[in-house]
Amino acid sequence: MPLPKSIATVCLSGTLPDKLEAAALAGFQGIEIFENDLLTYDGSPEEVGRMCADLGLAVTIYQPFRDFEAMPEPQRRRNLDRAERKFDTMQALGTDLILVCSNTQPATLPEPERAAADLREMAERAAARGLRVGFEALAWGKQTSLWRQAWDIVHLADHPALGLILDSFHSLSRGDDLAGLDAVPSEKLFFLQLADAPKLSMDVLSWSRHFRLFPGQGELPVGSFLRDVLRAGYRGPISLEIFNDEFRAAPVRRIARDALRSLILLDDEVRGAAPPAGVPAAALPPAAELAGFEFLEFAVDDPSRGQLAGLLGTLGFARAGLHRSKSVELQRQGGVNLVLNSEPDSAASERFEMFGPAVCAMALRVDDPARALARAQSLLSPAWQERIGEGEQRIPAIRAPDGTLIYLVRTGSDIWSADFNLAAPQAAALPPLAGIDHVVQALAPGHLDGFVLFWRAVFGLQADPVWELPDPFGIVRSRTLSSASRSVRLPLNVSESRQTTTGRFVSAYAGAGVHHVAFAAPDVSAAAAPDAPMLDIPENYYDDLAARFGLGDAQLAALQRGHLLYDQDAQGGSFVHAYTHAFQDRFFFELVERRGGYDQYGAPNAAVRMAAQARQQRKWASGKGTSPNPINVCGSCARGRERRASRPCSRSRLTSATMQA
Amino acid sequence: MPLPKSIATVCLSGTLPDKLEAAALAGFQGIEIFENDLLTYDGSPEEVGRMCADLGLAVTIYQPFRDFEAMPEPQRRRNLDRAERKFDTMQALGTDLILVCSNTQPATLPEPERAAADLREMAERAAARGLRVGFEALAWGKQTSLWRQAWDIVHLADHPALGLILDSFHSLSRGDDLAGLDAVPSEKLFFLQLADAPKLSMDVLSWSRHFRLFPGQGELPVGSFLRDVLRAGYRGPISLEIFNDEFRAAPVRRIARDALRSLILLDDEVRGAAPPAGVPAAALPPAAELAGFEFLEFAVDDPSRGQLAGLLGTLGFARAGLHRSKSVELQRQGGVNLVLNSEPDSAASERFEMFGPAVCAMALRVDDPARALARAQSLLSPAWQERIGEGEQRIPAIRAPDGTLIYLVRTGSDIWSADFNLAAPQAAALPPLAGIDHVVQALAPGHLDGFVLFWRAVFGLQADPVWELPDPFGIVRSRTLSSASRSVRLPLNVSESRQTTTGRFVSAYAGAGVHHVAFAAPDVSAAAAPDAPMLDIPENYYDDLAARFGLGDAQLAALQRGHLLYDQDAQGGSFVHAYTHAFQDRFFFELVERRGGYDQYGAPNAAVRMAAQARQQRKWASGKGTSPNPINVCGSCARGRERRASRPCSRSRLTSATMQA
Repeated sequence: MPLPKSIATVCLSGTLPDKLEAAALAGFQGIEIFENDLLTYDGSPEEVGRMCADLGLAVTIYQPFRDFEAMPEPQRRRNLDRAERKFDTMQALGTDLILVCSNTQPATLPEPERAAADLREMAERAAARGLRVGFEALAWGKQTSLWRQAWDIVHLADHPALGLILDSFHSLSRGDDLAGLDAVPSEKLFFLQLADAPKLSMDVLSWSRHFRLFPGQGELPVGSFLRDVLRAGYRGPISLEIFNDEFRAAPVRRIARDALRSLILLDDEVRGAAPPAGVPAAALPPAAELAGFEFLEFAVDDPSRGQLAGLLGTLGFARAGLHRSKSVELQRQGGVNLVLNSEPDSAASERFEMFGPAVCAMALRVDDPARALARAQSLLSPAWQERIGEGEQRIPAIRAPDGTLIYLVRTGSDIWSADFNLAAPQAAALPPLAGIDHVVQALAPGHLDGFVLFWRAVFGLQADPVWELPDPFGIVRSRTLSSASRSVRLPLNVSESRQTTTGRFVSAYAGAGVHHVAFAAPDVSAAAAPDAPMLDIPENYYDDLAARFGLGDAQLAALQRGHLLYDQDAQGGSFVHAYTHAFQDRFFFELVERRGGYDQYGAPNAAVRMAAQARQQRKWASGKGTSPNPINVCGSCARGRERRASRPCSRSRLTSATMQA
Repeated sequence: MPLPKSIATVCLSGTLPDKLEAAALAGFQGIEIFENDLLTYDGSPEEVGRMCADLGLAVTIYQPFRDFEAMPEPQRRRNLDRAERKFDTMQALGTDLILVCSNTQPATLPEPERAAADLREMAERAAARGLRVGFEALAWGKQTSLWRQAWDIVHLADHPALGLILDSFHSLSRGDDLAGLDAVPSEKLFFLQLADAPKLSMDVLSWSRHFRLFPGQGELPVGSFLRDVLRAGYRGPISLEIFNDEFRAAPVRRIARDALRSLILLDDEVRGAAPPAGVPAAALPPAAELAGFEFLEFAVDDPSRGQLAGLLGTLGFARAGLHRSKSVELQRQGGVNLVLNSEPDSAASERFEMFGPAVCAMALRVDDPARALARAQSLLSPAWQERIGEGEQRIPAIRAPDGTLIYLVRTGSDIWSADFNLAAPQAAALPPLAGIDHVVQALAPGHLDGFVLFWRAVFGLQADPVWELPDPFGIVRSRTLSSASRSVRLPLNVSESRQTTTGRFVSAYAGAGVHHVAFAAPDVSAAAAPDAPMLDIPENYYDDLAARFGLGDAQLAALQRGHLLYDQDAQGGSFVHAYTHAFQDRFFFELVERRGGYDQYGAPNAAVRMAAQARQQRKWASGKGTSPNPINVCGSCARGRERRASRPCSRSRLTSATMQA
């Protein structure tokens, strides 16, 4: 029996009916009505109450009631009158609980007895109408800022219609915990609000009002907070109260689904392994054990399929098979499988029409596809039935938040022989690649937190802290998700600026996804053919490398000759890597070699890479030099949604001729 | 003789040549080469030095050299080798000064003697090549974080090629000042970096790396900092070092011009009134004394001119004159003059073609137009010569950062009789308006700081702190500029979200400007005719007003009847105001009454207004009800740049018919 789940209207964007409908559609059972959403709405509280009832949403609480307790007269009397007005509203809405948050006014009296007396009178008036009052310590309350202080006042007031409300953000942002909560009678725990947040060192009020996140998206120990509350006997709803600028501006249904996903995950984390006594265990299927990527699939058309195969050829890839019935080929190099799909009227061709050449699917090796699928479904990611031909095998799949297909392939199984005519293995032209090291995605602003939650919840990936990368045209923020074994690594990049490499990619291609793929090479200096179109790295970079790391002249010369970048970690691990030019300004490949346990991604070199790409891109756009791959869209034109590979915009057509190889 | 002005490449976006060209074009004399900009660039340091020389830019400094002093061996030795490599670079660039910022490494030894010895050795090596070393305390340095600590080390090292570098951000962010700087010999002050910032309570490293501003845009006392440095005898360049995410993503020439404007203003502030001894006085003309708006001018076409006059009629406006030779009329109500310009082939018609109906000019009453113009020109806002007809008077004008014309009209002069056939005054249908209370502009993200600087510099306006306003579809940030007399008040609104009222306006109309005009009404409840299309305010708002302020039933009923909103300040002042519906979804009017010295803008009501507008906008877009003004573009379509009033996009045309009144 999962805990009842509720969400505050302030978490969601739009008008009040938008919010209620989205919460109900996602599957919430309860809703907190945030006062501002009601008073800006042009329907009566009765109508809002009816809307909630029709949608199957219980109004769990009405909030907030601010700056109430311990005020001098005449404010005290006016506050009690104000409470009566709000009780009218609550009765019309059909909720019995109001949240009083601790007073922030400078004039608040430093007298817990006065606060208790005021709250007792409010509770007495509430009780006369069958209503209840919950008192919560705001982290920035003037006299009451910790839950224990709030509890002391509630205890002192000693009224059955008065209880305590806990909020994970208000406690955890202060570094506080719930030690001592066991001493609070469980019937005095009236309500529980949950919020996560990134660890930021800023004033707690700004942090709270702009940067809260859903549990699982941030860095606060919300799980152990919830566990402590359940241990103390609380059995009411768990309710989200998130103030986040990006969520306020995002499509409401997406955010509502993320919200419920976060609570399902949290509920499972708390009740899954060792549920508190008296709390039923949860039963989400455990996350899959991942063993890397079985393949990546690219949506292409016939011309770009040949061009992409050509680029891959310079990295040692060769055609390893053709699909028995479709225009689909398998390119293979060592442990890396890439599928190039140019089948007309397929999901891949739809993707191609939308975005041009793009990764349309990734296949993960999992220990148990059925279990992985069941977990995904429990976490609001339904199974996706891709169209297949007669006699073809069906691979279980779900979809990532941007629509990319994620196939679930049993580790060690052969998925190729059934559908492909496989070629006999040939002598390799280059040393074999070990596999796919990482896959980088470019996300539109506002999408990072949702992706992080998806991958953490559905596949149990871990999230690193955010890195900031300086592009010549703005800041790129990067957060990496990876499996415990590091067999799957997914850096996610996001940029507010449309002019950065990341931002340009997103704005130009409407956000469809993978922007580079890194192959693990046992010896990166031997991993590319001499004619591979590798990104030029400026000489100044090598001068600086020499100064920073004291590398010898021979090593420097070898790095420079191979267009290689270099990084070291504090433990003496090192990282050598190189990039290809971008394919049709869409995506590029990286070759990486990790030495001595290096576990990062060469972030200090990202600025060098992005500057080199910006320079290269500008050269091609201005017609100086030629792209090693045909560019069929204009790289400098920012009118992304207009631009489709199949229908280049007029400005694009002007320059595309000059960019043909 | 102004102080020589310099800027660090890191302040600006783009590639290194972009940055150099923009700095030179703006008029800077010097440039700091930020290391990352050099090492990501594919030209040699010699080539960069030549580029600077060709552009007339002195390379004032090469920076930063990090984590140098007081390291244990073998790092110490490697750091000295690293310094030699960087000396090579400096000589190639053609600069003699390097900035060493204090060490942030945990391993830094807490020994000022070691730091001094290391810096002495570095200075000795530098001197051998004719170079110099400047040492700066980073606010987050491990052992050295205050300028006095840095000076103690420089003093101890006692080498002629070693000196001190000061940075306003690193000192002021720590709450430090320059007391004691007089004791430092002026020849030891090697360089001065300047940066402003908003007052934020966050960790100083994040604050420094993302939120610095140009002097005059923030809240730090940069002027008195500079005055102290000049008093101590410094006569070198004043150089900007700003790390700001928005500046990094903005067009480089705009930011470079803002940068120089900020230094010209700062220079004048410091040397204008009471220059430090031995520093020549500055001579910018003083800012104008403002006496309100003489008029606002709207760019319209003939149909929208009639419709706008119709809307204005409901607020008591009447035609007061017609231009003698152009399709231009003067609408007047009490102290408010509005010019409606539908003249073909004029600047106004160009504006109309670009943006649809929009404010294209505002005229400010100033004590001395020639002096105001001279000041503007000194601050990089050249005079703008609008085309005029033969025999017409020329009014001096400049342009705001978004291209809006700003006419400068001598207070008390008659600008109307010469060009207009004025109608005889008629009995007014409604009580006269006192004037224009404030004019609100909607800015595209990234433009707020530039606008603030323009209005502070050119007109001496003061900037209030930033307000945050919750729109149903995202956060709107608002910052108000006003003259000391409050005769000119300019709230500036900006939103990251395209779905907010502000963001939708900006994205739909490419950012052209004024989004509402507030008229001062001595009695706001009598200021609109019964048929004026006033924005509907939900009943719940009035219930809340009653609870918050304890207003009587009669007062509440009067407010509700007049669609009026209400606010109070802590001093007992109050504010009563009302909004019209938006005109063609482009702009709207507000009626405001200030009582008892109320000096704000009713910010607590902004959420109610924006929710009501969003609701109204959606109703019209869905064809429910009719707009009181014809809507000729689709309000729900976000394809702003496609959408011109003269060329509505295809989606717009689908719905425009249903939206006609």
